[in-house]
Amino acid sequence: FAPVDVISNHIMGKRSVRRYKDTPVPRDIIQSCLDITAYCPNGYNARAVGFTVITDRSLIARLGNAVHEAMKGAPLPLVMQHWQQRHGAGEGEEDTVFWGAPCVVFSHYPATWRKGVEDSTIALAAAEMVAVSHGLGTLWLGAARALGTHPSLASLAGVPEGRKVVGGMTFGYPAVRFVREVPREPVPVNWVE
Amino acid sequence: FAPVDVISNHIMGKRSVRRYKDTPVPRDIIQSCLDITAYCPNGYNARAVGFTVITDRSLIARLGNAVHEAMKGAPLPLVMQHWQQRHGAGEGEEDTVFWGAPCVVFSHYPATWRKGVEDSTIALAAAEMVAVSHGLGTLWLGAARALGTHPSLASLAGVPEGRKVVGGMTFGYPAVRFVREVPREPVPVNWVE
Repeated sequence: FAPVDVISNHIMGKRSVRRYKDTPVPRDIIQSCLDITAYCPNGYNARAVGFTVITDRSLIARLGNAVHEAMKGAPLPLVMQHWQQRHGAGEGEEDTVFWGAPCVVFSHYPATWRKGVEDSTIALAAAEMVAVSHGLGTLWLGAARALGTHPSLASLAGVPEGRKVVGGMTFGYPAVRFVREVPREPVPVNWVE
Repeated sequence: FAPVDVISNHIMGKRSVRRYKDTPVPRDIIQSCLDITAYCPNGYNARAVGFTVITDRSLIARLGNAVHEAMKGAPLPLVMQHWQQRHGAGEGEEDTVFWGAPCVVFSHYPATWRKGVEDSTIALAAAEMVAVSHGLGTLWLGAARALGTHPSLASLAGVPEGRKVVGGMTFGYPAVRFVREVPREPVPVNWVE
């Protein structure tokens, strides 16, 4: 197993990337990030998480617009309304859904199953760890929820029929470079000893 | 960032541990696993995930029994019924909820928030990566869902009022040693190129 400082620095150095180079991500690199998820823990060992990978730039653009439209009409929690106000104004100018990423990955689960969110999130977190090793930048996609609740969006994305989208992530080479981690407040922990 | 093979081997070698040594886990080691989660991505950067750490062995035993009782009456999905049949028979003989772990960690979120499952899972996945570096074994706790839906169980666990449990994990030194990773089938991926 990797030493503590290696793992800690890897996690601390990871940043959410919202600006990408146009360079496509080679298919075998994406595949290697997803391959690792076969080894992830998952509920009842059902191994039901699968992925749809989109590298078609015009489809990513169309899907971004469709998600944006779907979210406009949705009743959103307060913070998300804030996000909408902040980014909605620049409509059409900037892709505030997929942020110009050359590759978008959605995780999904058989629609008849429920509660695959944890499995999907553990899998995407592992894929992200490997992606960062490959020099890729990633962004967790809140937009995945729109695909999970609107089957027509999932269908547009090419998600196989009968699968419910439970998570999403962008993969791409960052067009920004972060020199240090963000300073963070300690996480609240209460001890029962 | 750590090389691909270092990260991949770390994730592939991680195993769900259901047998623990009695050795307590030092508090600073648990703290270092949870500290890393301050750097995890999370929805709208709300940073609302917190943790309750239980190292009181008698409380862990009482809580395990209470969770077991609560789950007996619950309408469960099919696989979980299977789990119940498989483990329910040994009632009282073996702790099939926390598996004798010397430390149990629950993640929680303000009860007024919803949808903290992803944030919590990303955080616990990161904590697990660090825990494994420390030589610890972990197990993702499906039982966390019981605490999330039964406030009385969360209260027994010492979770602060107003926080909803969204995830859980055991931490402990493994009493088993795994010599290799489990062989896995490839994960289904469909490409939209």
